[in-house]
Amino acid sequence: MSDEIIMPMWTGDYYNEGTGKDSIFDKLKEECGVFGVFGHSEAASLSYYGLHALQHRGEESAGICVSDGKEFNYHRGMGLVKEVFDRDKLLSLRGDRSIGHVRYSTSGDSRLANAQPLIFKYRDGDLAVATNGNIVNAPKIRQELEMSGSIFQTTSDTEVIAHLIARSSKDFVEAAKDALGQLVGGFAFLLLTNDKLIVASDPHGLRPLTMGRLGDAYLFSSETCAFEVVGAEMIRDIQPGEMLVLDQNGLREERFAEPQRKALCAMEYIYFSRPDSDLNGSNLHSSRKRMGKIMAQESFVDADVVTGVPDSSISAAIGYAEQTGIPYELGLIKNKYTGRTFIQPSQELREQGVKMKLSAVRRVVEGKRVVMIDDSIVRGTTSRRIVNLLREVGATEVHVRITSPPFKNPCFYGIDTPDRGELIASYKTIEEICLEINADSLQFLSPEGLIQAVGGDSRSEYKGGLCMACFDNDYPTRTDFDGEEKFGCNC
Amino acid sequence: MSDEIIMPMWTGDYYNEGTGKDSIFDKLKEECGVFGVFGHSEAASLSYYGLHALQHRGEESAGICVSDGKEFNYHRGMGLVKEVFDRDKLLSLRGDRSIGHVRYSTSGDSRLANAQPLIFKYRDGDLAVATNGNIVNAPKIRQELEMSGSIFQTTSDTEVIAHLIARSSKDFVEAAKDALGQLVGGFAFLLLTNDKLIVASDPHGLRPLTMGRLGDAYLFSSETCAFEVVGAEMIRDIQPGEMLVLDQNGLREERFAEPQRKALCAMEYIYFSRPDSDLNGSNLHSSRKRMGKIMAQESFVDADVVTGVPDSSISAAIGYAEQTGIPYELGLIKNKYTGRTFIQPSQELREQGVKMKLSAVRRVVEGKRVVMIDDSIVRGTTSRRIVNLLREVGATEVHVRITSPPFKNPCFYGIDTPDRGELIASYKTIEEICLEINADSLQFLSPEGLIQAVGGDSRSEYKGGLCMACFDNDYPTRTDFDGEEKFGCNC
Amino acid sequence: MSDEIIMPMWTGDYYNEGTGKDSIFDKLKEECGVFGVFGHSEAASLSYYGLHALQHRGEESAGICVSDGKEFNYHRGMGLVKEVFDRDKLLSLRGDRSIGHVRYSTSGDSRLANAQPLIFKYRDGDLAVATNGNIVNAPKIRQELEMSGSIFQTTSDTEVIAHLIARSSKDFVEAAKDALGQLVGGFAFLLLTNDKLIVASDPHGLRPLTMGRLGDAYLFSSETCAFEVVGAEMIRDIQPGEMLVLDQNGLREERFAEPQRKALCAMEYIYFSRPDSDLNGSNLHSSRKRMGKIMAQESFVDADVVTGVPDSSISAAIGYAEQTGIPYELGLIKNKYTGRTFIQPSQELREQGVKMKLSAVRRVVEGKRVVMIDDSIVRGTTSRRIVNLLREVGATEVHVRITSPPFKNPCFYGIDTPDRGELIASYKTIEEICLEINADSLQFLSPEGLIQAVGGDSRSEYKGGLCMACFDNDYPTRTDFDGEEKFGCNC
Amino acid sequence: MSDEIIMPMWTGDYYNEGTGKDSIFDKLKEECGVFGVFGHSEAASLSYYGLHALQHRGEESAGICVSDGKEFNYHRGMGLVKEVFDRDKLLSLRGDRSIGHVRYSTSGDSRLANAQPLIFKYRDGDLAVATNGNIVNAPKIRQELEMSGSIFQTTSDTEVIAHLIARSSKDFVEAAKDALGQLVGGFAFLLLTNDKLIVASDPHGLRPLTMGRLGDAYLFSSETCAFEVVGAEMIRDIQPGEMLVLDQNGLREERFAEPQRKALCAMEYIYFSRPDSDLNGSNLHSSRKRMGKIMAQESFVDADVVTGVPDSSISAAIGYAEQTGIPYELGLIKNKYTGRTFIQPSQELREQGVKMKLSAVRRVVEGKRVVMIDDSIVRGTTSRRIVNLLREVGATEVHVRITSPPFKNPCFYGIDTPDRGELIASYKTIEEICLEINADSLQFLSPEGLIQAVGGDSRSEYKGGLCMACFDNDYPTRTDFDGEEKFGCNC
Repeated sequence: MSDEIIMPMWTGDYYNEGTGKDSIFDKLKEECGVFGVFGHSEAASLSYYGLHALQHRGEESAGICVSDGKEFNYHRGMGLVKEVFDRDKLLSLRGDRSIGHVRYSTSGDSRLANAQPLIFKYRDGDLAVATNGNIVNAPKIRQELEMSGSIFQTTSDTEVIAHLIARSSKDFVEAAKDALGQLVGGFAFLLLTNDKLIVASDPHGLRPLTMGRLGDAYLFSSETCAFEVVGAEMIRDIQPGEMLVLDQNGLREERFAEPQRKALCAMEYIYFSRPDSDLNGSNLHSSRKRMGKIMAQESFVDADVVTGVPDSSISAAIGYAEQTGIPYELGLIKNKYTGRTFIQPSQELREQGVKMKLSAVRRVVEGKRVVMIDDSIVRGTTSRRIVNLLREVGATEVHVRITSPPFKNPCFYGIDTPDRGELIASYKTIEEICLEINADSLQFLSPEGLIQAVGGDSRSEYKGGLCMACFDNDYPTRTDFDGEEKFGCNC
Repeated sequence: MSDEIIMPMWTGDYYNEGTGKDSIFDKLKEECGVFGVFGHSEAASLSYYGLHALQHRGEESAGICVSDGKEFNYHRGMGLVKEVFDRDKLLSLRGDRSIGHVRYSTSGDSRLANAQPLIFKYRDGDLAVATNGNIVNAPKIRQELEMSGSIFQTTSDTEVIAHLIARSSKDFVEAAKDALGQLVGGFAFLLLTNDKLIVASDPHGLRPLTMGRLGDAYLFSSETCAFEVVGAEMIRDIQPGEMLVLDQNGLREERFAEPQRKALCAMEYIYFSRPDSDLNGSNLHSSRKRMGKIMAQESFVDADVVTGVPDSSISAAIGYAEQTGIPYELGLIKNKYTGRTFIQPSQELREQGVKMKLSAVRRVVEGKRVVMIDDSIVRGTTSRRIVNLLREVGATEVHVRITSPPFKNPCFYGIDTPDRGELIASYKTIEEICLEINADSLQFLSPEGLIQAVGGDSRSEYKGGLCMACFDNDYPTRTDFDGEEKFGCNC
Repeated sequence: MSDEIIMPMWTGDYYNEGTGKDSIFDKLKEECGVFGVFGHSEAASLSYYGLHALQHRGEESAGICVSDGKEFNYHRGMGLVKEVFDRDKLLSLRGDRSIGHVRYSTSGDSRLANAQPLIFKYRDGDLAVATNGNIVNAPKIRQELEMSGSIFQTTSDTEVIAHLIARSSKDFVEAAKDALGQLVGGFAFLLLTNDKLIVASDPHGLRPLTMGRLGDAYLFSSETCAFEVVGAEMIRDIQPGEMLVLDQNGLREERFAEPQRKALCAMEYIYFSRPDSDLNGSNLHSSRKRMGKIMAQESFVDADVVTGVPDSSISAAIGYAEQTGIPYELGLIKNKYTGRTFIQPSQELREQGVKMKLSAVRRVVEGKRVVMIDDSIVRGTTSRRIVNLLREVGATEVHVRITSPPFKNPCFYGIDTPDRGELIASYKTIEEICLEINADSLQFLSPEGLIQAVGGDSRSEYKGGLCMACFDNDYPTRTDFDGEEKFGCNC
Repeated sequence: MSDEIIMPMWTGDYYNEGTGKDSIFDKLKEECGVFGVFGHSEAASLSYYGLHALQHRGEESAGICVSDGKEFNYHRGMGLVKEVFDRDKLLSLRGDRSIGHVRYSTSGDSRLANAQPLIFKYRDGDLAVATNGNIVNAPKIRQELEMSGSIFQTTSDTEVIAHLIARSSKDFVEAAKDALGQLVGGFAFLLLTNDKLIVASDPHGLRPLTMGRLGDAYLFSSETCAFEVVGAEMIRDIQPGEMLVLDQNGLREERFAEPQRKALCAMEYIYFSRPDSDLNGSNLHSSRKRMGKIMAQESFVDADVVTGVPDSSISAAIGYAEQTGIPYELGLIKNKYTGRTFIQPSQELREQGVKMKLSAVRRVVEGKRVVMIDDSIVRGTTSRRIVNLLREVGATEVHVRITSPPFKNPCFYGIDTPDRGELIASYKTIEEICLEINADSLQFLSPEGLIQAVGGDSRSEYKGGLCMACFDNDYPTRTDFDGEEKFGCNC
């Protein structure tokens, strides 16, 4: 077998590594996934397989809420989809409409109470909410609600929208429209009552949300890969500012806001979404391979071997190799069995050379000049570590190529980034970073190269229809309210 | 291999699929891994990380037995290494010498009682045994032992050697030498008492077993990848018929049998061993890439895309692409989160299109002529299924290239193969198989191509130092005793 | 009680049997227990042992919320106290003030989301609430709150008080006073913020709540037995309508309502509280023994043996034996190992004679006239079953003596009773019940006898300071609001 | 409720307390229980309920082996019966004959590998063995076996008999007869092959073993209480030296040894067996009540209250109270929820007064002269602790009455006793013990009183048919072989 080319960026263990338990991996963290069904008698089972396909977007908790038109049945728990649900629990979730969620969250809030879908009881009955993203003005809205007597049970932004709906005197659809209209940020929402499913995407379409069909049923998912898994057909993306209403009368297309310039998260292309998903009509493995090829054009370096940091950068590395003719080899390998219950080696054993999850392959690297492809540099610690791994097994040169522009600014739309001050590209030059990570050379993909690579339907749009604020500080929305900046993910 | 959709050699989820729970995957099953330590104060922890690196060789049970020179401490359990051991259990295993084991076994015998290392108490004290392989004449020996009053607690071959040693009137080393000398088959043995560690490989070296050093300690492992993980240096392979004795006097090299022609299992090269392991001085990813390249020379076909069946055939697919210039693409993808607790879709949902673990990527494949690289075909059912997956998402042609000769004969040395009659290549021509699996063309790697690809130190040896009996019916040992053929793995 | 074959008040296995899984046991269900600490550095550990002593009051979920004066640490889970907490979880609950809860609930609401203490975030910060009892007008208040936009996450009455407090413009103490003043029903409340602990009992003192001291710390518990276990001294009961405020200024005694006539639940004396607890200055084992003695005076019957239905009626049976001189014997025995995971016998095995949890002792009963003491009859099915068990092993006569008056009316103050129509005493005469349960004679304790038996400080009060509404239909509060009667427990 | 009269001596938590985790309870430990079925289609389910009734005899592991006449199905595990088996496992155990086991063992050997029934494969097929007791000459036999080449996998005596059978050249029944005939000690054996069940009791009948019928099936159990639970009828005890053979020809009564004087373990009467079991035709609750009455005659003391140490001494305490007219009260209470996962209080909390599992009831004891009934004194530490508990809550006098003679000698027949030097009665006078345990007076039941109390069919036999070696040093068998004394339990 080769090098796990598959599943570049979405292997479970990988993200755990960023939770602070394993300091060598300071990767960006995912920001949740949602999956909705309307009109299929096995809504819960489809959700199970759909969420399983979205597992890479959040491994901390999972939940499904189903309605049979009369009442909710739901189950949520900590852990992977396959751990949270067993056959009995799945069978008990009867109904033909559902919303489901997988969640990543910062450790402080990793309580079961925050696991989605959140369930509320209000004047008009039951309401379930699942979301992906971040609402920049949630603290301000929350404060206003509290001042007029609202109580909250979670720290999740998601609870805000339920309060706004419950306080409205309008009917559910209008109340939801008003509530969504008050939110600033990047978000995909699924709202379920016993008779309606509402699906909405923020005015810039910052977070991916797409619609599919399976027979007569409508499906909604953060990524298209979930449609393939359940045998559904992808129909179209939810548009910026759009709100779909599904009930016994079928599907109704509405808006809660005028569409703003399309600004889909660039990191979804670079790193988060599964390589077999499509974004804007373009397959992500292919996009990443193009990133590697363009990278090769922009910053060629003569070398003996190209290798990618598993799993996220394999596609780009193959592209780089294809473009340059330098052979692609398996210079780095990751142990896939590692997971939450894995016992980390003691400091003493580490010093003796016991590896964590990634190791370099001596026979491949020894005596070679290596081009190492990675997708991003956050704090720089991981890059340094990997470069050193390669040197320890005998690489004579290590040239690092990053398939994104320098990451300089925090995300306000659902990606859990460290403070700006910890982002190495915000305070060091490329030369300084190169020195810091102990590389022989370091190059980043240009913004233009990135836009060219994502291709698909996006090319003619402003910045290719991408949000690149983390690279260029050009945020599509206001980011501060009451003087407080709220970045990260707060699903 | 084809009938291995998923993850040949080292992804956890994989082997479970063959236990009968998931009938669509009819792949070959791994045959256990062993890891030994002599002379390191953290023998148990090193074993934990070492066995974790060998996890792909057996996911059913794991065990470690440690001695501090006076008494044994051991723990065994069902499941992955990380599931069987927690920190407390690991800490309780004090001592500087140890043997460990990961085990795959056929479902009927998957009892905890069979988990290795097996522990025995006999006249001279405690004895622990861990093994990888299959002893062809074990039933015969067992019968003789039973006739003279022996009782057995397991169905494992491993118990036979303990009886032979206990019945000998010689000292432990001589008794072990005699006992090993009576065994016919392919095996790697680790035998531990409170003062000695014995390490042995069968007279043909059918199963891999290698020695490393970490400081003053000696390590032994089924594969070299485990050395890299613990920071150890690989020294050399254990020779056919060799028996090493380690005790307070250090390492002593002995023989229990004259070496026969070297005949290392070809499937270790093709499929079982991890791509970052070395066999006979050659890295396996590189060997597999060479298989792909030679395959391309032997049976080129014009196409738009090369794709490999994950995870086993990615290296070969990249080699094929590199050789032909046809771009390598991610046409098939596997969900890594799938595992033992995963709920399989109902028949009804499968018919509606819910996928198991592998899916084809429409955007990559649609309208394309595809070369699909796989490592072997066992019954043919999986290959057919994958070809059809590719066709369903729009492949116009599917050309299957297998990086091994046709698999026609059962293995008697530790690989769990079906009966000869179920091996499709034993009763169909290549043309018939091509038809059966619904491919546009089908080619297998030639035996000569395979020998050329494994390279390393092997080229000058007879058949490259390989056992290729599963392809050519030329078994290096007798295979029947008392008229009974005993194939498969019975660790 | 009869319909409580097993273990009235404090054996784990017991209450589960009533959750519908085991339809033969139709007993009354417990209504939760609370335990509070103020001013002890090991507040969480004390709560663990205290709640463990109150385990008989609720086996479904347990929770502890601790504050260190700045922030909350809490943990809740389904199951017994010993199952919900492990050492690590307990150690993580740092702080010197806490409230804890054990909960029984009807099966429909047995979700983790309802496990107490409930935690709320509101304008002034964090609020935790634990309660025991039932608020009769909660649905009405809830409806009003919903109409003005409140959302609820649980079905618990407990959430109502948090909303009332959050909506008040007064400070926390005054807001709590107002909120408590709006509630009608029987309840004991513990309210915790980061700087205050508020403790309150309803205006009739329907549910027990008592105060103790351990060094400088104040403790609060549903029963005194928890004080003994943690080495604390019992100080006094919380008075009807009383509200205690504890903060950095110490303990302040306030009232949220004028005290009404004392009306402590009679079933606490008869059945619920542990025999080693004191109520109103009287030990419960002694009170129950007096019930048996008075019963013997009121309705003597000549017999060979007295036996009590375990565990609830042993004390009364011994009293009956002591008074009459008829020997007390062990005629019925219960298996204490039975619990949630116990596999119930199939219908077929039951018919062959496989017993559930209770069996009659042949050698003790055979050929004897038996007096069988039980505490109550709910539907009559269990009593009938036990009488028959005794007859099957050879009892010649079975005389049933119940140490409470006939149970005719549902409870509105926290005991989970069936509908009035299912209470056998509400529609049958004593003679008819006797026939129904297949007894030779049946007598109930008189209300006067019960009042005399509870003794202690209660004798001079109206009805001995007891609520006996379940016997005499004289409810101390209004029981209907908006035409809807809300009985049972809704913690 | 009263004081847990039920279940005197057999509550799970109790025995755990003696495992060293909880030093205040230095109770004797149980020595396993066996349950056999021959000829019932639901053999496994009957075994489950039967073993559950015998749970007090061993809480460490449980196992059932069933045969359908062709092959074994078995399952064993650590923990209580209800924890080891779930519905699926039970259903998978198909067959009409079975043997089952619950096991207590000293901590050093508490490995799953030792859980019974032990399963062996030998010349004639499968053999399962379950036993209760101790074989005094097992080490000697084992040594002989090892010298001739036998290997052992456990430290259990049980393995010895399997080797003896396997080495015999006779048929199974004769081989078993010979093997049993070589054993010296106290034991009850169940031996199962695919066509036969063999049941045997040692030549003195030291351990209880009884036969029952359920329809056409034969049942065998360590205690009669298990028959009542499954609806079976008790037939008779297995006689000393008897060996029953059950196969397709029905039941055959044989002997492997001449019967010796009947010497049933006195501690079974006093403490181990369930109060609802019968021994020698006498109910144990009644026997224990008689012990209390005779005790009262032998050593009356004027007092205000009689209390028993739960759970084992409640019956005797009631007898004492009945005889003297001093009221029986609930002066000591034990928390039944305590179990393996319970977190023990820290030393600091204990010093502050946090109780373990037993507490004294202040209202009952304060200002009173107390007679405290217990069943035995081993080291004296527990007695001292309980006396002090009573004093702390205000007892003015504490008079201890023990319903057995002083325990001075270790048991060689299956009860796990400390070394002779730790038995307080072996080195102190009664007066000294009284001082040591801080009692006002201390009396033991006389041997004659004990014999009188056990009554039943035993009165005319030598020493009432009892083994009282632990009191009088008169062991019914040899106790040393090769100079080594082997006491305790080694199932």
